[in-house]
Amino acid sequence: MQGHSPIVLGIDPGTHTTGYGVATQIGTRLVCLKKGAIRTSDKQPLEQRLRTIYNQLVAVIDETSPDVMAVEAIFYAKNVRSAVILAHARGVALLAAANKSLPVIEYSATEVKQSTVGYGRASKEQILTMVSRLFRLPTAPTTRHDSTDALAVALCHLNVGNSARRIAQALNLETPTRRLGRGGSRWRTL
Amino acid sequence: MQGHSPIVLGIDPGTHTTGYGVATQIGTRLVCLKKGAIRTSDKQPLEQRLRTIYNQLVAVIDETSPDVMAVEAIFYAKNVRSAVILAHARGVALLAAANKSLPVIEYSATEVKQSTVGYGRASKEQILTMVSRLFRLPTAPTTRHDSTDALAVALCHLNVGNSARRIAQALNLETPTRRLGRGGSRWRTL
Repeated sequence: MQGHSPIVLGIDPGTHTTGYGVATQIGTRLVCLKKGAIRTSDKQPLEQRLRTIYNQLVAVIDETSPDVMAVEAIFYAKNVRSAVILAHARGVALLAAANKSLPVIEYSATEVKQSTVGYGRASKEQILTMVSRLFRLPTAPTTRHDSTDALAVALCHLNVGNSARRIAQALNLETPTRRLGRGGSRWRTL
Repeated sequence: MQGHSPIVLGIDPGTHTTGYGVATQIGTRLVCLKKGAIRTSDKQPLEQRLRTIYNQLVAVIDETSPDVMAVEAIFYAKNVRSAVILAHARGVALLAAANKSLPVIEYSATEVKQSTVGYGRASKEQILTMVSRLFRLPTAPTTRHDSTDALAVALCHLNVGNSARRIAQALNLETPTRRLGRGGSRWRTL
């Protein structure tokens, strides 16, 4: 498990806006290789919107060659209509992963928040602040929210990989090379 | 609106089983060109199952060259989990349509039942019986259920086209060439 950190494509699917963030770790530093949002018009039929999401995700995969897709587990919202519409977008995102031979790993919303902020019920603002600090993103672009959740889920996967490495190191009786940061996050902002 | 009846690909999406039926009308006769079910293993990850559904639907489209895809409108089931999982499959089915330049037409479950049996709250058995009669399907294959709903939605679209033709004929003061059948169905079993 030691060595190269994977390149992780985090996805936050939605029919209106699908956020994505491609992240990895180089040494102790988190790097955002690409992030953005795929937007579709609600004037288009659903199938055309899904096509836009699929094609643009495939383009991001082709450009960044991720090793894995990370996505939040299905969320059974109180608003059934929203959950069902979102699941259409999630379906084509998963298809893009399958067609590009990317394994898909799911994390619950609680895991993502816990991993990013260290608190499973963190607010959207806390996630935004922490993701921006960890990836050293410029502050205050108004559109940044769209890719924040995607980067957070990518980060969650990188954290899990680090945990596995730490366990492997512990089992080999080696000293972990990196300690947990303070402030609840497992990442230090270097 | 007169002349050639469209070739309609009816879809009944699901992650476990996606039923499909390709139907058209030749003269006054309904013809089922192809029907079947795409089955996936629940041992596979969801993204692989979606890939199977997508690829097989594309193969059906390539083989039968339909003019349109007909699908039931999103159903907000009481079982949210089922509805959300189903929506993943529905998403990739719509994507297959979009990638193959097929327009997608949605019909409510009530419209489909009304169109097939003449009664918006018809049972599954009534749908099965009427679809089998109208398409002259051999009786009692145990797997026929899987494509019945798909053929019913294709039939619904053909009926709507016929209604439009009848209206066009009426506006031209021509006599409709075909009368409504009895027994609640707009189709006669010839």
